[in-house]
Amino acid sequence: MRILGIDPGTGICGFAVIEDKTPLDYGVISTPPHTPLPDRLEDIYNSLHEIIKADRPDVMAIEKLFFKQNITTGISVAEARGVCMLVAKQCNLPIFEYSPNQIKKAICGYGQAHKPQIQEMVRVHFNLKEVPKPDDAADALAVAIVHSFVAKTATNVSL
Amino acid sequence: MRILGIDPGTGICGFAVIEDKTPLDYGVISTPPHTPLPDRLEDIYNSLHEIIKADRPDVMAIEKLFFKQNITTGISVAEARGVCMLVAKQCNLPIFEYSPNQIKKAICGYGQAHKPQIQEMVRVHFNLKEVPKPDDAADALAVAIVHSFVAKTATNVSL
Repeated sequence: MRILGIDPGTGICGFAVIEDKTPLDYGVISTPPHTPLPDRLEDIYNSLHEIIKADRPDVMAIEKLFFKQNITTGISVAEARGVCMLVAKQCNLPIFEYSPNQIKKAICGYGQAHKPQIQEMVRVHFNLKEVPKPDDAADALAVAIVHSFVAKTATNVSL
Repeated sequence: MRILGIDPGTGICGFAVIEDKTPLDYGVISTPPHTPLPDRLEDIYNSLHEIIKADRPDVMAIEKLFFKQNITTGISVAEARGVCMLVAKQCNLPIFEYSPNQIKKAICGYGQAHKPQIQEMVRVHFNLKEVPKPDDAADALAVAIVHSFVAKTATNVSL
């Protein structure tokens, strides 16, 4: 199964397409600072359609939002997340969402793991020489890995 | 100038198209309870494209999010709002946003006005016999009215 992982964001939106233990494609959809929000959303929409057309994933796994600190940033992340889910729906991809805690637990074994620990486990999982960069791409790889675990072990229900 | 007002939401998304003191079209884009979120977002996307194609507004005025009480509801409203802004951008409509307080102040003269007061002022503004229903359509009319005031009196900058 080919999984598209998404770490949603407006300025930087991480994506990753994996199949089994192979990262086929990963990176970020990014726009320059101070780009107006509508332009950013359109860029995410167009880029994500292109990625899906090129990489042909079967499902989308996306980070669930969890507002702990910055609600203002959270609003724009949710706006980008809405656009990502719209694109998945338009491309008939079932969507699965995972909270930051679920991702940390699945990847590192405990929910309080720090970012560098997750990134190191992503590197080990794919047997890469270096931690994937930038961070948002590594996060997108992480959520894709989590879905690959869940898909193997349980019956799960898409959104 | 023809203004498309939007009161964003996933289950119910209010819209209104006005020109001067005439409400040309208003209503809600709504989906049955328990409809999956991606289906709702796609419905908003398609419906809004149809409304813009039919009513040909020049600009979009949309409510700005303000998280006071329900952050969980707020996330899905932001997801819908992202899709609304995407559609406006795809249709080349400049987007203007107004906070709930700005809307209350502009319509009723003070920022603490209650919903029935706003709705009554919307009725009076358009010289309607009854308050427009449902509430989300009235809210969309309200944000459109606010932009009509601002557009007449000041130079304002779209998103």
